[in-house]
Amino acid sequence: MADSAYAPVDFSSWTCPAPLRDHDRIVMGHGGGGTLSAELVEHLFAPAFGNSVLAELGDAAHLRMGGARLAFSTDSFVVRPLFFPGGSIGDLAVNGTVNDLAMAGAVPAYLSCGFILEEGVELSVVGRVAEAMGEAARTAGVLVATGDTKVVDAGHGDGVFINTAGIGLIPDGVDIRPQRAAPGDVVLVSGPIGVHGVAIMSVREGLEFGVEIQSDTASLAGLVADMLAVCPDLHVLRDPTRGGLATSLNEIAAAARVGITLDERSLPVPETVANACAFLGLDPLYVANEGKLVAFVAAEHADAVLAAMRAHPLGKESVAIGHCVPDHPGMVVAATGLGGTRVVDMPLGEQLPRIC
Amino acid sequence: MADSAYAPVDFSSWTCPAPLRDHDRIVMGHGGGGTLSAELVEHLFAPAFGNSVLAELGDAAHLRMGGARLAFSTDSFVVRPLFFPGGSIGDLAVNGTVNDLAMAGAVPAYLSCGFILEEGVELSVVGRVAEAMGEAARTAGVLVATGDTKVVDAGHGDGVFINTAGIGLIPDGVDIRPQRAAPGDVVLVSGPIGVHGVAIMSVREGLEFGVEIQSDTASLAGLVADMLAVCPDLHVLRDPTRGGLATSLNEIAAAARVGITLDERSLPVPETVANACAFLGLDPLYVANEGKLVAFVAAEHADAVLAAMRAHPLGKESVAIGHCVPDHPGMVVAATGLGGTRVVDMPLGEQLPRIC
Repeated sequence: MADSAYAPVDFSSWTCPAPLRDHDRIVMGHGGGGTLSAELVEHLFAPAFGNSVLAELGDAAHLRMGGARLAFSTDSFVVRPLFFPGGSIGDLAVNGTVNDLAMAGAVPAYLSCGFILEEGVELSVVGRVAEAMGEAARTAGVLVATGDTKVVDAGHGDGVFINTAGIGLIPDGVDIRPQRAAPGDVVLVSGPIGVHGVAIMSVREGLEFGVEIQSDTASLAGLVADMLAVCPDLHVLRDPTRGGLATSLNEIAAAARVGITLDERSLPVPETVANACAFLGLDPLYVANEGKLVAFVAAEHADAVLAAMRAHPLGKESVAIGHCVPDHPGMVVAATGLGGTRVVDMPLGEQLPRIC
Repeated sequence: MADSAYAPVDFSSWTCPAPLRDHDRIVMGHGGGGTLSAELVEHLFAPAFGNSVLAELGDAAHLRMGGARLAFSTDSFVVRPLFFPGGSIGDLAVNGTVNDLAMAGAVPAYLSCGFILEEGVELSVVGRVAEAMGEAARTAGVLVATGDTKVVDAGHGDGVFINTAGIGLIPDGVDIRPQRAAPGDVVLVSGPIGVHGVAIMSVREGLEFGVEIQSDTASLAGLVADMLAVCPDLHVLRDPTRGGLATSLNEIAAAARVGITLDERSLPVPETVANACAFLGLDPLYVANEGKLVAFVAAEHADAVLAAMRAHPLGKESVAIGHCVPDHPGMVVAATGLGGTRVVDMPLGEQLPRIC
């Protein structure tokens, strides 16, 4: 490769294929899952890696190997604090990647696990994180098949960072992709939104809102299996993590070139989350979830899928929140309780850094 | 999972399944690939994850999915500096995982890529790293299929950390595992050892040894393909990265319960590496390589495999360095130039931290 010359490294010769909002340095928002993250992928990583698989921008890549249809996905986890009400970085590291595979309709099977540990972190902390991962993996029905541990000097990490990658098998006949959203589709969500983000922020800011809010981190693989059993032709699934429901819906609207209309009154926002969001100045539509999914289903299947979701422990509070329309392609519009409408935009960065 | 209680987290209830050399905190050596790393896997991760796939301790897991035989592997990269003579963290991130797959006899196909970036790092640096990854991926014949970017606050990371995981297809009839080393096998190495580690240390310490020593980072997938073409029944392949050739040989001796004898005079140590090691107080047998492999081959195939290796640009300087014996199972012994022998032990940690 060309880069074999040694210091001083001359970066002046490197030019970004398109301006990245005039940033010349990484800001927190580049990791937020919003517009800045998307720009980084579109203008920097995709051209550098130069391939079309990455450019599909799903949460998981769809691959075909030796006759098998596979989903392949990765996520790194840098959440602070490591332990929080309802879970830990270990739960997120397993469930996050398991859910990305499930959102491709795949049956999650194997995970890899890469730790980057900071010198000086207690072995008991690493042990507790690993046990949480093991427990979450058993619950989700996946095996941690391969791993790696690196250690960085004190002051050059932050306790425990984890990367997981996962592989799952996509059943024959299943074709779930953001591009398949179509006018007429009903949009379903599997339960209350904004819970994970508010749980993390409450801990981090030392806030209390009457009752403790617990993260919703969970494996959604079983829920998806039950949904596929009644409707193998699900169009789109997405777990609205970083950037929340608004970001996922905007990505889907853009990928499929459809409009999405939401009925704001039908959005399942628990009172505790609403109160916390009011206090923190957050919009629950943009707050991260770690155990919820949004599904796009043809209207004729919507009732059956909704019933299947409500019959599952993780989908008891599932509701329809809107539908796809041929108007305003690429745009998400919410009908407000007052009879008006508002555009639900893609966020620039993330309101809540290091939420996962 | 059990861990839903919130702060103060009580770690006193957590007990490590076996004492980890009396450490109660992570030290740099836990990331060094030696005995401390192995203890962390054996006593902490394997019991927590509770499965047998991980326990095989190969560089890649061997999986069967939908009729396909797959290799699956992961590595995180935290090397300092990010750019060094002969390559960059981007090259290592691609070649390291590609080589782990190739050492299972797999044809590397897809990589995932997870970045953990530190707030404030120049976009031009990220761009150069990504371009190096793209170039290395094209050379190795793999696609970066899925990715993720997280950002941590300034002072809680170190510029750029990268995790890659990879999937490759294992051809029918190929069965390459450390357990297959057998008495009588000839041990081959594909060229000069210790080059990568010395290249990094020279830069980091600002040392010069007459000529610039360049890292040997390279994809070994093509070399392995040529070796398999003449001998599908290779027993063991390993790329001696962290911990060097001594660590790889000890792992193989332990896994297969065979003895290994080396002819010290046959070890390909370049004069520049020997000089640097003498100056730095290092043993070249323990210094990391990033573009070399060691192969265990039945004696009757050794000449053909060695010839195939020498015919490949990355194997021109291949040599036989020893063989497997029924004596001293689990132990590596070197015949010195003076007619004596010495035990080549497993290192505790890594002489050179953050080498990859």
